[in-house]
Amino acid sequence: MPVEHSVKLRVRFAETDAMQVVYYAVYLVWFEVARTELFRSVGLPYNEIQKRGFHTPVVQAVVDYKSSARYDDEVIVKARVGKVGSSSIRLDYEVTKTPGKVVVCTGHTVHVFIGSDGKSKRIPDEVREKFSA
Amino acid sequence: MPVEHSVKLRVRFAETDAMQVVYYAVYLVWFEVARTELFRSVGLPYNEIQKRGFHTPVVQAVVDYKSSARYDDEVIVKARVGKVGSSSIRLDYEVTKTPGKVVVCTGHTVHVFIGSDGKSKRIPDEVREKFSA
Amino acid sequence: MPVEHSVKLRVRFAETDAMQVVYYAVYLVWFEVARTELFRSVGLPYNEIQKRGFHTPVVQAVVDYKSSARYDDEVIVKARVGKVGSSSIRLDYEVTKTPGKVVVCTGHTVHVFIGSDGKSKRIPDEVREKFSA
Amino acid sequence: MPVEHSVKLRVRFAETDAMQVVYYAVYLVWFEVARTELFRSVGLPYNEIQKRGFHTPVVQAVVDYKSSARYDDEVIVKARVGKVGSSSIRLDYEVTKTPGKVVVCTGHTVHVFIGSDGKSKRIPDEVREKFSA
Repeated sequence: MPVEHSVKLRVRFAETDAMQVVYYAVYLVWFEVARTELFRSVGLPYNEIQKRGFHTPVVQAVVDYKSSARYDDEVIVKARVGKVGSSSIRLDYEVTKTPGKVVVCTGHTVHVFIGSDGKSKRIPDEVREKFSA
Repeated sequence: MPVEHSVKLRVRFAETDAMQVVYYAVYLVWFEVARTELFRSVGLPYNEIQKRGFHTPVVQAVVDYKSSARYDDEVIVKARVGKVGSSSIRLDYEVTKTPGKVVVCTGHTVHVFIGSDGKSKRIPDEVREKFSA
Repeated sequence: MPVEHSVKLRVRFAETDAMQVVYYAVYLVWFEVARTELFRSVGLPYNEIQKRGFHTPVVQAVVDYKSSARYDDEVIVKARVGKVGSSSIRLDYEVTKTPGKVVVCTGHTVHVFIGSDGKSKRIPDEVREKFSA
Repeated sequence: MPVEHSVKLRVRFAETDAMQVVYYAVYLVWFEVARTELFRSVGLPYNEIQKRGFHTPVVQAVVDYKSSARYDDEVIVKARVGKVGSSSIRLDYEVTKTPGKVVVCTGHTVHVFIGSDGKSKRIPDEVREKFSA
């Protein structure tokens, strides 16, 4: 069963644009919020990852826009571990509007585990296990 | 020869994050700045597109992160028409740091031409020509 | 007793800057989040205000920065009705960090009630009462 | 004669909100852009201030909103040294739209000079002179 976690957000006025919908870059911010909570939920809050000597910079981000969200809408942002590679991890996302669970967008991000020397590192088994439960 | 346009930007403090690099969603904002100027450069500022009864919402955005940019760095954001389809257009982007032209990221966005009824429309020939010069 | 409402937020990575603290403009975004919920809590969600034919543009915003908040900190943003004038309203804000309730910043915003003609209007008594409970 | 510096910006789509005007927090971002260039213009780019062992955190920000700016508007953001105190500096700002120089907003920020020990420091004379030309 894939490791996943959802957060509920309400669209901020700051997140809308003159088309009166959520600005297209904001979904990457929401992905980050869901990602943070996913990591926390498996016992790896970002501070913990840093304590172990890793950074996890993003190397790719993709968003497929399906419909739009508007000011004050409630949205669910679901993050799910898509693939755990040797030194990278792919997370998949889906944003839905409530009520009705209309899909607003889907997407993914790919992150590389980097050591303090700036080079990619093999993901430790204990970390891998947490993302593969 | 592809239609393209470049803008020079300086990294704002607001655009950095606690990793002391440009936050990953900001590149989509820069893509938009370059896209706006590309459209203007071919005689189709966004207001003009709207006057013709079109909106051009984004349906996909992709960023491939290569290196990082920091506060006060000067960057060049190049937008280029990648493909003009029947009712959609793909724009490709490249962000480089000066000096040295180090590639910071590449990416693309896909936009659909939508009429006032919210349905996708064939891109008019005169618009198509401007993007195919 | 003043009408007030608090929201709990967690600092997003997107909200930090290269000083590794929350970027100074972000507090106005948080003020907006608390303001939205304060209006909702008294039965005047923003959509309702618009239905009654009003907009409430901001005419002044002030922030006094006391200490800093960091990535992943939990903060409480409290909004309180400060003064209800003839056609304007002042809201006061306080942001505190948990645990310990350290004050991060205080501030206020002033909003004018504007009708569809763009001119300031006397705040209706029924609206005034909701803000003066 | 006061030390001042102006920058010309074009309103980004990302900077607008669902009221189809510039979101109220964005002006603080623009103030920062003008402040950065003012500091550079007097020979004190921010990196230089840091090299001298100082940080200059903001302790107060104020914006008085006069009219609104919209997508693609060209605006001039003027920053001016308002007051140089013993260990703090106040900068005044004015945003105008072109053409016509309509005032969009005015405001100010106050910054304290802090040493590496986190305590406020007397502004060195050579720095003071640069801001008092």
